[in-house]
This record gives sequence, C-alpha cells and structure tokens, in this order.
Amino acid sequence: MDLTEKMLERQEIFDGHIIKVHLDKVSLPNGETAFREIVDHPGGVGILAMDEHNCVPMVTQYRYAFGRNVLEIPAGKREEGEDPFVTAMRELKEEVGAVAEEWIPMGKLLASPGCYNETLYLYLARGLTFGDVHPDEDEFLEMQRIPFGELVHRCMDGEIEDAKTVAAVLKAKVLLDL
Amino acid sequence: MDLTEKMLERQEIFDGHIIKVHLDKVSLPNGETAFREIVDHPGGVGILAMDEHNCVPMVTQYRYAFGRNVLEIPAGKREEGEDPFVTAMRELKEEVGAVAEEWIPMGKLLASPGCYNETLYLYLARGLTFGDVHPDEDEFLEMQRIPFGELVHRCMDGEIEDAKTVAAVLKAKVLLDL
Repeated sequence: MDLTEKMLERQEIFDGHIIKVHLDKVSLPNGETAFREIVDHPGGVGILAMDEHNCVPMVTQYRYAFGRNVLEIPAGKREEGEDPFVTAMRELKEEVGAVAEEWIPMGKLLASPGCYNETLYLYLARGLTFGDVHPDEDEFLEMQRIPFGELVHRCMDGEIEDAKTVAAVLKAKVLLDL
Repeated sequence: MDLTEKMLERQEIFDGHIIKVHLDKVSLPNGETAFREIVDHPGGVGILAMDEHNCVPMVTQYRYAFGRNVLEIPAGKREEGEDPFVTAMRELKEEVGAVAEEWIPMGKLLASPGCYNETLYLYLARGLTFGDVHPDEDEFLEMQRIPFGELVHRCMDGEIEDAKTVAAVLKAKVLLDL
C-alpha cells in the first residue's frame, strides 16, 4: 500500500529563530483529508566523547521546556547547510572544551517524527584533548566527566532521560562491547 | 550555580489539536534576557513488544514531517491526564492488535528537550496474544514482526532512525541480555 500523504494547502504559523511551524492540509491514502501540525527544526548533533579512562564529558543545562536541569551529552544545532561533522567538532569544543582525534559516526536519530522534523547526527569521539570552554552567550552549562559504566546504569535505571543521550550511550556500549 | 531561567512574558503562537506553541521572554542566570521558542506536546508512549520467538511487532507509517515512511515500535499520544500505562495498552492493541500479559517499564525519554516538551514512556511487553488491529481513522500503518536480533543490527547500522525505537531496542537488549 502507498502510505504517502500529499500536501493540499499550507498555513504558515510561526517563523522563529530556531523553529518554524506550519499547518498543512493533506490528502490521505484513502482519499480523505487531514491536517498535519508540523514543526521544522534545523537538526543537530550529539557527541558521546570518551577520554582515556572511559570517562565521558556530560553537560547539565536548564531546559526551559521542562522547567528543570537535564543531564545530556554535548549537543547543538546545525547552521544552515553545515556538514554535521563540522557542527559536532564545534559543539564539543564550545561545550566541554575538547578536541578529538578519532570520530566515529553512530547514525542519525529522528527525535519525534510525528510533528517535529529534527534529525540528530550522533558521533563517538575519542582521543580527547581538553582546553577552555566557549559556550554561546545565552547558554549556561555545567560540565562533568562521568565514567561510561555509570552512564550506562543511569540510562538503564531511568535517571538519564534525554533521548539522544540514551541512544548514544547504548549504541556506544554495543559498538565498543563495554 | 543556579541555572534556572524565569519567564518574564509569554506570547501564545498556536493552539493546535496536538501541539501548542509559545514564545517566552526569560531571564537568564546572568540577569540578561533571551527568548525561548517552546512547543508543548501531550507526550506519549512507545512499546517494544516481544513474542515467544523474540520477534517484535513493528509499524511502518508515512511520517509527513519527513516526507517518507519510517519504521517504528508501536507508539501513541497520551490523552489528557491518562496514565501512560493505559495509553500503552491501548496503542499496542490499536496498532498491532496485541494484548500483553507482562509489562515492564523502561523509563522515560525527553524527545528533544531544547524546544519540545514531549515525554515518552517506554515499555517492554511480553506474553503477547494477537487479534485484530484498530488504527485511528486517519492513521495508515503496515505491521510486520521482525526478529529482535535483526532489530538490534538495524539500529546499530543506522537503518532504524526513530529515536524512541533505537532507545527501546537497545534498552531491551541490555535489560534482557540478548
């Protein structure tokens, strides 16, 4: 069966600095119509970096959408047209002050494919050298290095909730057989 | 350091059937102000169900936000105030026609905490009995059962991209030591 939905009309709702929102009327496979509420997001990257002791630089930041601090791997949005690998190198440097010798792509994630078209590229980074951090001017972060085994436990026991972090930690566990 | 951002003003942008969008002016930890573009989402569930042969019912659906079909675990949105376990039982029945004897919570996921406040509850379901499927009237799905080991490979090689599916499959792999 062809499951394709085709756009019939589009209503532009919001054109923000990060997201754009539109409401589309679409035709369904059975010929009926429906509305789709869609958030366009530029996409980004998440980096699971591991030092020579298998410790991982993690960032805590206030996530206003949830009204609390969230513990995550370093991550950031892509600039328009930017190669995600360039984004990943920049964000690792900005957020935790690290440069990596080895970069291993760990695939893409669709954050929430129902309404939100964010694609996240995951990387494993090793061979780290740490220097100064340079967060964006409206970004306030706390960085700590956490042993990888502890991160796996904290993903499994539900303490770590950020989807890209859970996916990246468990992908790295399987990939590295740790 | 207290990382809290406090709301100063809110502009309501969109009040949709699924999402709501608002633009908030906030005070930052350093006393400056910034804007936060926030999408409110009711949250939902994702279910990794496993039959007696370790095969997993998976759904393929057209994701209009990406303009293509996406392979995912059964999932769905919570009704307002609904216990996520009730949502999970309903969605497993609706999307793949299954009832489960055993339900194991596998924690929560924050789909994309920067702008989007969706929380997804993950479950592992076993002891399956299959009957008829009852998808929503504007929902077109194709269901297939895929061996769990194949799913792990397809998450690791990047073919499966849906974040909740990657997280659920790899959590189940670690939990069940498969």
